[in-house]
Amino acid sequence: MESKTYAVIGTGAIGGYYGARLHHGGNSVHFLFHSDYDHVCQQGLTVDSHYGDFSIAADQLQAYQSTAQMPKVDVVLVALKTTQNQHLASLIQPLLKPDTLVVLLQNGIGAEQELAQQLELPYVGGGLCFICSNKLGPGHIHHLDYGRITLGMHGETGLPALSQLAEDFRQSGIEVDVEDNIFAARWKKLLWNAPFNGLSAVLDTDTAQMMQCPEIVELARDIMLEVKAAARSSDTELEIDLIETMLTNTAKMKPYLTSMLLDKRNGRELELQYMYKNALDIAAEQNIKMPKTEALYQQLCFINKAIVS
Amino acid sequence: MESKTYAVIGTGAIGGYYGARLHHGGNSVHFLFHSDYDHVCQQGLTVDSHYGDFSIAADQLQAYQSTAQMPKVDVVLVALKTTQNQHLASLIQPLLKPDTLVVLLQNGIGAEQELAQQLELPYVGGGLCFICSNKLGPGHIHHLDYGRITLGMHGETGLPALSQLAEDFRQSGIEVDVEDNIFAARWKKLLWNAPFNGLSAVLDTDTAQMMQCPEIVELARDIMLEVKAAARSSDTELEIDLIETMLTNTAKMKPYLTSMLLDKRNGRELELQYMYKNALDIAAEQNIKMPKTEALYQQLCFINKAIVS
Repeated sequence: MESKTYAVIGTGAIGGYYGARLHHGGNSVHFLFHSDYDHVCQQGLTVDSHYGDFSIAADQLQAYQSTAQMPKVDVVLVALKTTQNQHLASLIQPLLKPDTLVVLLQNGIGAEQELAQQLELPYVGGGLCFICSNKLGPGHIHHLDYGRITLGMHGETGLPALSQLAEDFRQSGIEVDVEDNIFAARWKKLLWNAPFNGLSAVLDTDTAQMMQCPEIVELARDIMLEVKAAARSSDTELEIDLIETMLTNTAKMKPYLTSMLLDKRNGRELELQYMYKNALDIAAEQNIKMPKTEALYQQLCFINKAIVS
Repeated sequence: MESKTYAVIGTGAIGGYYGARLHHGGNSVHFLFHSDYDHVCQQGLTVDSHYGDFSIAADQLQAYQSTAQMPKVDVVLVALKTTQNQHLASLIQPLLKPDTLVVLLQNGIGAEQELAQQLELPYVGGGLCFICSNKLGPGHIHHLDYGRITLGMHGETGLPALSQLAEDFRQSGIEVDVEDNIFAARWKKLLWNAPFNGLSAVLDTDTAQMMQCPEIVELARDIMLEVKAAARSSDTELEIDLIETMLTNTAKMKPYLTSMLLDKRNGRELELQYMYKNALDIAAEQNIKMPKTEALYQQLCFINKAIVS
């Protein structure tokens, strides 16, 4: 099979890691940089990885400052924060061929549908990244642990292209699951994210501290039950055991700082639209109430206002 | 009419201010002190007041370290934080005559009923203090503004004694309203306290900042509607206009740091039982749901745990 060409939009902790893996798997990967562009042109891209460090030398790195300068590709991997999604359609437009597969490696619910509608794209998928990774500095990524990706399509078509992507990931050393439907997988991840991301940001604390407080465990469970009801209202039935399993596992986990807590502490805009607002809107359309989730969202709006203003 | 004798239990920002006013109004007032006792025996009690400073010299101050040493009185004014209420019955027992009136100058809901049951007291009332006052140091109170008290009885009887207390307050320069029923007055005050005390503590912010965030105004309104429904379930009908009036007034107020925010910042236990838990329990007994109030309470439990542990 002919080798696919890739574009990575947002070369940070997530996009940089997976893109560099694909490059070392023998794929042609084009990377979009923002403020790091000048640095990587001189120094290349470096990954300090749990599984062994690796890098792309400057003369091997296909780096760009603008998507207008990039070639059209077979697969676009979007690893921007969802807080940038208002620019996403115009950003990726120059990269698209009629059959380009666009895969959103982002948090939350609703981004695939929005993008598919905006650009009338035939092939939009999503990926959930189970990874601990962060950016240490320009072109310098620290991969702490894990890395498995769950992939799924947004619509009915495009599964062959997604399966090819999965195969390229696997040959590059990345564990991948392919699910029928990214929407169901996103609801499942939101079941954990909705309580723990938001509460950790509001209470400025880690998962272990929260799990030691019975009232917070109860609140987390209540929010999970609301998310489960919202998922059901959009035809996604999550197993009831999942909630207790997630709570048990979270209590056993090493203390974990959620991405939303880190965003808050670092003064970065919070991902409220796709992590909370879209789920609340989906539920409201079906007359499903999510009062505790909504209360948390309302508090997060206050915190976010202080960050963005 | 014969002059009444008074005991003030908890001589802090509230008890010290009102007790010292009653003393200067010509009443015999006995003050219980805790850690400040040695200091006030030497230096007396000083009030820097918005309406003019005043004090009680050490040789005029009827100060005690224990209620066992105090005389039985006609009126006991309790100005402890409700976080001390597990000790209240045994604390005031030595002060009681068969017709002693006990008045709780405390926050929240349910303390009068609890005390009346514990001690089989015939005359228990409550007072809501609309005052800005704090303790600067041992025996030293700073009265910043206001001071009106709303008084009401817990049960059907005792109104003549309460009216006499109201008269003594007035003759001592304190504005007083007497309502039929302290329970209704307490629900009304809780309508404001439930959203703004808790949210200010969780978000670590003042009323002005909160009122500038539309999502927090919406959340405050939702919590107020839940409190209104809970009040109705215990036969207290609050006017619907009250909510919008309170929100409008809060938006116009100078930035205000709530007592719960100050308690949190100063590492003092939060008044969760009487400000939240009792109202939630009353509502639950009538199958009234208060999900947003409960979510806030659950978060406050987390914050309180860090304070008391």
